[in-house]
Amino acid sequence: MAIPQRFTLVTLGVADVDAATAFYRRLGWRQSTHSVEGTTFFSTPGPIIALWTSPELAVDAGLASDTHAAPSAPGFRGVALAVNFDSRAEVDAALAEWQAAGGRVTKPAVETEWGGYSGYGADPDGNLWEFAHNPFWPLDERGMPHLDGGDVE
Amino acid sequence: MAIPQRFTLVTLGVADVDAATAFYRRLGWRQSTHSVEGTTFFSTPGPIIALWTSPELAVDAGLASDTHAAPSAPGFRGVALAVNFDSRAEVDAALAEWQAAGGRVTKPAVETEWGGYSGYGADPDGNLWEFAHNPFWPLDERGMPHLDGGDVE
Repeated sequence: MAIPQRFTLVTLGVADVDAATAFYRRLGWRQSTHSVEGTTFFSTPGPIIALWTSPELAVDAGLASDTHAAPSAPGFRGVALAVNFDSRAEVDAALAEWQAAGGRVTKPAVETEWGGYSGYGADPDGNLWEFAHNPFWPLDERGMPHLDGGDVE
Repeated sequence: MAIPQRFTLVTLGVADVDAATAFYRRLGWRQSTHSVEGTTFFSTPGPIIALWTSPELAVDAGLASDTHAAPSAPGFRGVALAVNFDSRAEVDAALAEWQAAGGRVTKPAVETEWGGYSGYGADPDGNLWEFAHNPFWPLDERGMPHLDGGDVE
């Protein structure tokens, strides 16, 4: 089974990451110290919750040519689930399996600017999945990533 | 903190639950025996993944009057995260906290036909969250639900 029955991250597309982060912080949430300029990560006992701009997500997923262009897929939902793998080879195998099952590959896997390897697929209804290897996010025995360094107070 | 930093379920809206279930089964996934007519649940080491029709999700979230009407919210994404709680009182407290933080309550909590209690909110970007108490899904020490009965082969 090239794509395990789990996911490691959900990205919620937002208009303004700082404003969205402030909203979730008003709930008492604390972002991970792994959060970077333009991307906020919240650790949970399960998958990480990421806040990122919807246009950047559309471009990253291969659905828009640049962040000023509308997504080419009419069904773009501004949300993506992700499955992290221990290796690049597993990412390639996942995308091949996805396509074999009838899913669409919206972006073949490529090296990313953050030092990882990632590609995207859409299921037949347009639900977006990222398949990624992030060497900085080791996976535990459940296949869940843990962000070292704790949370911002 | 009325809304813990975690989520217990993600619902992916689809056009046809049987067809979507068949797609994920072609990946080798096995749905939970808790799956019911019109809703498929996949257990993971983290949150449950649910497949449900987008129109039913829109109605359940208070964003459409019936399953033939278009969602009233232009930003409806066809995806929802959910947080499960141990009691109805916690659901009410979560929705109050959500509104106090600047979120919109799209549906106040009501008793559901499946014997639980559930309401919905949208964050300022339209990301949809359900807050629910399901007496049939006990939560573990991480706040994660476990579906007894295993998976369908």
